[in-house]
Amino acid sequence: MLHFECDYTRGAHPGIIERLNETNLVSTPGYGEDEYCEAAREKIRAAIGKEDAAVYFLVGGTQTNAVVISHLLRPIEGVISADTGHINGHEGGAIEASGHKVIALPGENGKLSARAVRSYLEGYYADEAWPHIARPGMVYISFPTEYGTVYSKSELEELSAVCRDYKLPLFIDGARMGYGLAAEGGDVELSDIARLADVFYIGGTKVGALFGEAVVFPDPSLGRDFFTIAKQHGAVLAKGRLLGIQFDTLFTDGLYFKIAKNAVDRASELKAALREKGYRFYIDSPTNQVFVIMRNERLASLAEKAAVSRWEPFDTGHTVVRLCTDWATTKEEVRELIGLL
Amino acid sequence: MLHFECDYTRGAHPGIIERLNETNLVSTPGYGEDEYCEAAREKIRAAIGKEDAAVYFLVGGTQTNAVVISHLLRPIEGVISADTGHINGHEGGAIEASGHKVIALPGENGKLSARAVRSYLEGYYADEAWPHIARPGMVYISFPTEYGTVYSKSELEELSAVCRDYKLPLFIDGARMGYGLAAEGGDVELSDIARLADVFYIGGTKVGALFGEAVVFPDPSLGRDFFTIAKQHGAVLAKGRLLGIQFDTLFTDGLYFKIAKNAVDRASELKAALREKGYRFYIDSPTNQVFVIMRNERLASLAEKAAVSRWEPFDTGHTVVRLCTDWATTKEEVRELIGLL
Amino acid sequence: MLHFECDYTRGAHPGIIERLNETNLVSTPGYGEDEYCEAAREKIRAAIGKEDAAVYFLVGGTQTNAVVISHLLRPIEGVISADTGHINGHEGGAIEASGHKVIALPGENGKLSARAVRSYLEGYYADEAWPHIARPGMVYISFPTEYGTVYSKSELEELSAVCRDYKLPLFIDGARMGYGLAAEGGDVELSDIARLADVFYIGGTKVGALFGEAVVFPDPSLGRDFFTIAKQHGAVLAKGRLLGIQFDTLFTDGLYFKIAKNAVDRASELKAALREKGYRFYIDSPTNQVFVIMRNERLASLAEKAAVSRWEPFDTGHTVVRLCTDWATTKEEVRELIGLL
Amino acid sequence: MLHFECDYTRGAHPGIIERLNETNLVSTPGYGEDEYCEAAREKIRAAIGKEDAAVYFLVGGTQTNAVVISHLLRPIEGVISADTGHINGHEGGAIEASGHKVIALPGENGKLSARAVRSYLEGYYADEAWPHIARPGMVYISFPTEYGTVYSKSELEELSAVCRDYKLPLFIDGARMGYGLAAEGGDVELSDIARLADVFYIGGTKVGALFGEAVVFPDPSLGRDFFTIAKQHGAVLAKGRLLGIQFDTLFTDGLYFKIAKNAVDRASELKAALREKGYRFYIDSPTNQVFVIMRNERLASLAEKAAVSRWEPFDTGHTVVRLCTDWATTKEEVRELIGLL
Repeated sequence: MLHFECDYTRGAHPGIIERLNETNLVSTPGYGEDEYCEAAREKIRAAIGKEDAAVYFLVGGTQTNAVVISHLLRPIEGVISADTGHINGHEGGAIEASGHKVIALPGENGKLSARAVRSYLEGYYADEAWPHIARPGMVYISFPTEYGTVYSKSELEELSAVCRDYKLPLFIDGARMGYGLAAEGGDVELSDIARLADVFYIGGTKVGALFGEAVVFPDPSLGRDFFTIAKQHGAVLAKGRLLGIQFDTLFTDGLYFKIAKNAVDRASELKAALREKGYRFYIDSPTNQVFVIMRNERLASLAEKAAVSRWEPFDTGHTVVRLCTDWATTKEEVRELIGLL
Repeated sequence: MLHFECDYTRGAHPGIIERLNETNLVSTPGYGEDEYCEAAREKIRAAIGKEDAAVYFLVGGTQTNAVVISHLLRPIEGVISADTGHINGHEGGAIEASGHKVIALPGENGKLSARAVRSYLEGYYADEAWPHIARPGMVYISFPTEYGTVYSKSELEELSAVCRDYKLPLFIDGARMGYGLAAEGGDVELSDIARLADVFYIGGTKVGALFGEAVVFPDPSLGRDFFTIAKQHGAVLAKGRLLGIQFDTLFTDGLYFKIAKNAVDRASELKAALREKGYRFYIDSPTNQVFVIMRNERLASLAEKAAVSRWEPFDTGHTVVRLCTDWATTKEEVRELIGLL
Repeated sequence: MLHFECDYTRGAHPGIIERLNETNLVSTPGYGEDEYCEAAREKIRAAIGKEDAAVYFLVGGTQTNAVVISHLLRPIEGVISADTGHINGHEGGAIEASGHKVIALPGENGKLSARAVRSYLEGYYADEAWPHIARPGMVYISFPTEYGTVYSKSELEELSAVCRDYKLPLFIDGARMGYGLAAEGGDVELSDIARLADVFYIGGTKVGALFGEAVVFPDPSLGRDFFTIAKQHGAVLAKGRLLGIQFDTLFTDGLYFKIAKNAVDRASELKAALREKGYRFYIDSPTNQVFVIMRNERLASLAEKAAVSRWEPFDTGHTVVRLCTDWATTKEEVRELIGLL
Repeated sequence: MLHFECDYTRGAHPGIIERLNETNLVSTPGYGEDEYCEAAREKIRAAIGKEDAAVYFLVGGTQTNAVVISHLLRPIEGVISADTGHINGHEGGAIEASGHKVIALPGENGKLSARAVRSYLEGYYADEAWPHIARPGMVYISFPTEYGTVYSKSELEELSAVCRDYKLPLFIDGARMGYGLAAEGGDVELSDIARLADVFYIGGTKVGALFGEAVVFPDPSLGRDFFTIAKQHGAVLAKGRLLGIQFDTLFTDGLYFKIAKNAVDRASELKAALREKGYRFYIDSPTNQVFVIMRNERLASLAEKAAVSRWEPFDTGHTVVRLCTDWATTKEEVRELIGLL
């Protein structure tokens, strides 16, 4: 059985398993105060070019979104997101459960434009009734987006500029950060993210780790008391070392970037083959998620040999299908899948 | 100065002030356990034709929406509303503050259609990822809507049917209930509301009272513990008698319905005159709110003599203006306003 | 039937009813932006001696506590209170419902001592695990307390000093503020409250109004966005003028203080008579609440002619009974009650 | 350096690391729907003797407490706990953050007695004001407690009986369940827990796993929608298999019970030696946590060679110190520690 349904079907990069094994019986303090976490923080600070950034390690993406957002918003504030944003649709209402409205604006190919944000903010303050309305308090985007698309550097700069005009923190969900940085034709580097976002995270779960997301506050003062809000959300791992060991491994010798590139390269091979076979794409994605339109019969026959993700109906005879590669996908797996299509 | 900007610019029907004066020094128990509240409950039960309905009195509309919704939803559930619903836009994020997502569906002239609700629910359960997504747990509509429009009896029956198919309570926000029941050409009676909704409220604040909303659970078992959730929201009035006295007055000799009809009759006169003068309407409303398109110069000159509500820009030279009549608007006030237009 | 069970059994001071009647058909803007509210704010600022204080009007006490506390706390913070504090026991879990822990410390006769607060804070920060524990974020006291006792000026100064040392706002619940200021032997004036508290409220519901609490931020910057958090809690009254009219009346010619003194004077007469008859007191209260120990048979026979409040069992044969006077209690009512005891 | 400061200083039982390594590149579905989770569920059902129990795997203890409690409580309800309960003091206010009061009753040696619970419930419903007060909605205990003590079978039966009388679910926090079941002189088995609790969890984090807590609903209907509330709390692990693999390993051939017994045996050796040396104990604990009173000078000199946990000051010259053994503590480590004392 081939697995292209998502990018979290396997364990971790073998180097991580090896480190977990080596360090298994070492005793350390809990809650992220160990030497492995400290080493990982240092490597991340170096990778983003911010020596004094505050770095915290949490377990998963939905959790991280809820903790970061409730950390930064006041009770009357909501978070602006593209309507397709993960926080708006796929997190069980976690943001609202912590008391905040997700202010969903129409996205374009999964992206939120600076223009849409500015227009919303202008309209908000132009309405005489604004004090009666949940206040926009931060802006959330994902990089890459839920549709595998990426912002260009100039798009991020424009978004960041709107946010700064209105003094709203810009939060970048980087659950698949590695794949976004490795995007075909992309021009964004991790240091750009750190320069333009007020807080972001570097996803491990989908990029080579067993689990783990590294939250970064380039200005550490914004991270004050983050430990306690994470604790309140049940998001502090007792054996925090497990996160340190994983991120230390991923940020040693650029492993994170290398394995992210593998996923994008495999996705490119897959798209080229699909294009050649005449498949239409639902959206043009330059990262590890491929959204292709498939006849329902084809999809049914495929199901026995390859797991894929049914995204949504396209028309009565076709379905939008998502195919994901990941840090471990091999050329051979891609070839086998192409053979079935 | 004329006041047509909203329907809560004055105090209360004089009959209410008189009763407050008469009963002022009588001592009663607090929190709604007094004889005035009990009398009011009985009259409301008679008016809706449900002898054993549970009736509670709260102070205001935003409060009532938040209390009712948090009373009925489980933590994982959200409430379906038209995107123009009051809970979605004008309550400071109150629903989200109690932990629940407002699931906003596109409305039509302020109304939520049974078709839109059914389609959303079918889509929700068709998505394999539904357990990851905030669950629709109730349906909220306003009668009349925020745009002054009303549902027909058959539209309400269809909505109620969808809700019962999916076992979702239907909640009708009746902040302006009186004006909706008196709508030109409307076919809905209070007993229909009580038959089709699982919970609704009869608005006093905008229909002749100083303040107050009467929440009705036609099936009283659905109201169990409502007092405590209201207390938790700070929504229980110590001198609950004030609500009893007001609703008792409003539901004696059909006063509520009579004064509501006044507002609709005055709005009809106003619309007829506007139509004659060639004004265009933004929306066709059969109740006490009139949405008319006005030249910006006209609006500016009007401002000195009549207060109206700027709803939203229509185009560069025009604005959508809301004009409200209420239970106390006189024919003369309407004539004066027409004279200015 | 005599009513001594609480201090909210009647309507309002007749002067208030009269003003409501006079102004009833005047049209004003909603939500507290009317001239009556503005006049009331000015009179309150004058009464407390803070020209630029921010003043907001809400409807009831539980509501006010919840709005103020959620306005000032960050998500990780809790509020320190005496264990007998109203927020800890009698508000349906309203503080917790907005996400915050009530950190209950043992009170002494209903009061929270500066020593107890300082000791808790020292212990909190001395515990290495403090970042795992809900952070104390403000201090709540009631003046007078739930047991009718009052803080002396020096006690308030000490509490205020601890709060300022730890940068915690001091919040004074003044649901019965008038009765506390009029306490026998008390040395606290409203200007002391305004000097020592960071936020407090002046209760109307229990001191002559139909309803209403005036929230004061002596430093107006602390009140920023208070309107919106009040709206989110459903605590903004559409016809806000009703609150303005009431507080304007109460703060004209010192009416608030005069009627508060009436309650305390009547309570003094009652206590003197009880003492003479040999009754023991549960607590020594200098305000309008009298806590007396009564034989159960006496209590049973009293029930037919006078309503009183059973506070808690004292021993198998006796009950702690609360007797309240209020702004309207007459000498004759007190005499009648004494006759029954 | 010796490590006795807590029971989560090391990684996992080597058998777990081995299984993680073996299965690392196998692809599985996410979110706990994989074969490893299913196998682990089956083994846990067998171990507790409930064939149809619902079993869910979460990551950590604070998280599990918050998810379970918010799953079972209605908004007006609070959870009864001993004042020393983990949810009351050490979880950053997580329970309150989800809207619920922790109703803290005085514990005895960390335990909550059936008598204390019944007395509280009787008092609650005897108070006429009960509808104004947060409703007790469930009972939380920890087994073993935060002080290492355990309930006897009859104590649990009494607690369960009170809960059933009042229809309150009994929730047992088993973060250290293994050590409680292995307690010296204890008479409680896992099947007793499953018979007497309505929901409980079997802690992995502190008993041989890298992380993980297995939540069990003996009656599966009580677990309905638990997945979604877990998702809402950010508590669903994408690679849920990691939890399945760990619990499958722990529940194969009784490994969980064997390694738990190791900790208790080592603690017994430690206590015997301390007793012999004349140390006083702060509390008599039969599990893996030893609370001993130590001179401050001794504690200071110990710090260089052994990490221990300062619990609280005992008197000016002494400190209460907690020493923990765990699943991996060796006889030699205990001997070395004894040599230092």
